[in-house]
Amino acid sequence: MSDASPPSRGRPRDPRSHEAILRATAELMVESGYAATSIGAVAARAGVGKDTIYRRWPGKPELVFEAVFTTTDEVPPPDTGTLLGDLTALLQGLVDEFRAPAAAAALPGLLADFAADPDLRARIRGDFLAPSKERLLVVFERAVLRGEIAGETPVDLVLDTLAGAVFFHVGLVGEHPRRETAALLAAVVAKGIEVR
Amino acid sequence: MSDASPPSRGRPRDPRSHEAILRATAELMVESGYAATSIGAVAARAGVGKDTIYRRWPGKPELVFEAVFTTTDEVPPPDTGTLLGDLTALLQGLVDEFRAPAAAAALPGLLADFAADPDLRARIRGDFLAPSKERLLVVFERAVLRGEIAGETPVDLVLDTLAGAVFFHVGLVGEHPRRETAALLAAVVAKGIEVR
Repeated sequence: MSDASPPSRGRPRDPRSHEAILRATAELMVESGYAATSIGAVAARAGVGKDTIYRRWPGKPELVFEAVFTTTDEVPPPDTGTLLGDLTALLQGLVDEFRAPAAAAALPGLLADFAADPDLRARIRGDFLAPSKERLLVVFERAVLRGEIAGETPVDLVLDTLAGAVFFHVGLVGEHPRRETAALLAAVVAKGIEVR
Repeated sequence: MSDASPPSRGRPRDPRSHEAILRATAELMVESGYAATSIGAVAARAGVGKDTIYRRWPGKPELVFEAVFTTTDEVPPPDTGTLLGDLTALLQGLVDEFRAPAAAAALPGLLADFAADPDLRARIRGDFLAPSKERLLVVFERAVLRGEIAGETPVDLVLDTLAGAVFFHVGLVGEHPRRETAALLAAVVAKGIEVR
């Protein structure tokens, strides 16, 4: 089943195709792994044409990242009442996302593709990390209002530290993070940036 | 010039060969990149036989990692008198290491090899991170004696956090860290784990 309509910028994208493509990608990560999964294989599994995929995503890294690592982006940022609680919830969400089989299967190859492509690397902050940064900014704004942290707390540094710790632990070392890891890391970072 | 003596477990390894091999590897990373550098090319550059190399390292990833990412392991752990000072020095060393041309050249290929080989990944904590962990343990022991941190401070978590943050910020996102980045991250982590 291929998408035979002529491409048009104005025509609304079919959300069902979008979901089918993301679901197919996640399935193939688990079944075949990152390196062995091609755009063609995803298209076949999702029942769309390859052009349907390329119209939405520039390439495999972008597609896999969205299919596997943005599952919490639709969820509102946590609002537990304290910075420690919010950071713990954010990190727990990250850890849960990384523990999913599709994520564990995809991360090493995704990291390798990022490292090999300067163009992709240049877009990491903008395209890939922007939603996570937005969520962290909301958490920080509340913490500033509560007097927990100073207004000039370095968001990018904290984001890199949190994402880096999880990426490194799961993607490189390949260990399944224990549930306590999120709470522990959140406690260290919260205490590290709190001013009161 | 090949090493013609028969291999023997008991015979001491020649430190000059060891250094020559590591130096040749780092040079070839910059000149030819990871993928294009073979053990044979390293052997030729270092003036040793390939067997001399294989006697010391199981393969290319292990050799490249040691040549490029352990340059600070021979240096004694920092002893500035405070945990903050020691962590800052450790982090600055890490940042300098990741910024070196050989590291930038080697990282993508090294990540790709890690991604493709679960066996290699399983050995990261033991073979690759052990020296860094030793250095951090010495720093922690001094901090415990000074009453700065508790004895049960989680070393692996802090190691992952520091290495992960630098790996992510410098190695992946590829940003040139400002001089203050190491100091800032050290301050957050030190404050995060200090008990007094």
